[in-house]
Amino acid sequence: MAGSGREHDDGRSAVRLFVEAPLEAGTAVALASGQAHYLRNVMRQAPGGRVRLFNGRDGEWEGAIETLAPNRATARPVERLAAQPPTPDLRLLFTPLKSERTRFVVEKATELGVGVIHPVLTQYGQTRRVNLERLRAHAIEAAEQCGRLEVPRIAPPCPLPDALGDWLPERRLLVCDPEARSTMAEAVEGDSGASWAILIGPEGGFAPAERRLLADHPAAVPARLGPRILRAETAVAAALACWQTLAGDWR
Amino acid sequence: MAGSGREHDDGRSAVRLFVEAPLEAGTAVALASGQAHYLRNVMRQAPGGRVRLFNGRDGEWEGAIETLAPNRATARPVERLAAQPPTPDLRLLFTPLKSERTRFVVEKATELGVGVIHPVLTQYGQTRRVNLERLRAHAIEAAEQCGRLEVPRIAPPCPLPDALGDWLPERRLLVCDPEARSTMAEAVEGDSGASWAILIGPEGGFAPAERRLLADHPAAVPARLGPRILRAETAVAAALACWQTLAGDWR
Repeated sequence: MAGSGREHDDGRSAVRLFVEAPLEAGTAVALASGQAHYLRNVMRQAPGGRVRLFNGRDGEWEGAIETLAPNRATARPVERLAAQPPTPDLRLLFTPLKSERTRFVVEKATELGVGVIHPVLTQYGQTRRVNLERLRAHAIEAAEQCGRLEVPRIAPPCPLPDALGDWLPERRLLVCDPEARSTMAEAVEGDSGASWAILIGPEGGFAPAERRLLADHPAAVPARLGPRILRAETAVAAALACWQTLAGDWR
Repeated sequence: MAGSGREHDDGRSAVRLFVEAPLEAGTAVALASGQAHYLRNVMRQAPGGRVRLFNGRDGEWEGAIETLAPNRATARPVERLAAQPPTPDLRLLFTPLKSERTRFVVEKATELGVGVIHPVLTQYGQTRRVNLERLRAHAIEAAEQCGRLEVPRIAPPCPLPDALGDWLPERRLLVCDPEARSTMAEAVEGDSGASWAILIGPEGGFAPAERRLLADHPAAVPARLGPRILRAETAVAAALACWQTLAGDWR
């Protein structure tokens, strides 16, 4: 759930809700219990109030709250505001971090336009525990807040070699590595039309076997992120922002 | 305090500590009580153990722990590893957020090479409360971790008009604004030799009077950060990373 509490300049609701059901004019959809609670107790809404609805397939809809109980609510799509755009082709591979920092990674990746978020397990990673449900909830909340019309897919975690083994040949893999010779601009420049994935390793670095695997990988393009040592979640936000400005939808 | 617990490849300590005292060969310096606790209980160090020391003025030193009690410790600088570099000229102006997100801003700004971090109060800001001591502690910890040899200065908070009133004429002010016509690259390109400050407004946007002030300001250069709505702390990390890659020390 996300909204500033104020309406947009165009009078439309600033509250955006992600739903699972199909969206079509006049067919009411059930909201999640957390959304019902949010509308009722945080946003002080009532039946008849306006919301915006999206489900990652049917575009964005202006809707009206139809029923609103403490933990149950329905909303009826009224008018389609925008068609569904293509899902962003950018992928993020990252090593799971402690809970709050992993949340940050998912939130920032969503805001910065990633299509698929893939936790990969590495030898020097901090943790191997990933709660996919929770990651998806963070992604939904961030998508509601940032205006996206789809929620990035969270791919099930797997070891780095497995993630690299089954690789589309046309997808570049930007490997963020403090020891790389190329800057971000040098690595991405001239290849901005390609499909890309960005890999952020663990703060302890890649293990020797992982380094060899990456050095030999035909899709790998190494790049460094400046002269200072970045925390992993800083590297995620920084690499994604640079990529969007060099080759993505910030141009 | 920051360290991976392992030594660097060159055998030097990975534990970096910021101290206030002058650093010169052979003259022991007092460590803060939190640093003593960290060395003793987290890093399991003992007298004779190695640390790296910096104070923002005298470069980086390899040092030896001399005394180590539960809340008191001293270390003796042994060898100077690096001269003090010039302080980065980049400034960040940001609107204070809730505690955890402000911490994030200070941490990321430190990692991403900001010289002065200036909280500015705006009409639609979330909060006017700023704990300067705590912000400085976050900046010190991030500087220790990221390998910087200085801690960014935290300027005392003031209203945005005051911050903009007393402005060096040669310093550009990059105003991150979702409604700007220029991209980051267009705004910064061709002017990368200049001094810069980056202003991130509140999530509620600038008030009309603030907008007028910024539109009329001779140093202001507006730029947008892509098509999605970014949280304020995401905008900070994204704008700083883009600036460093377009005009700063990531080139």
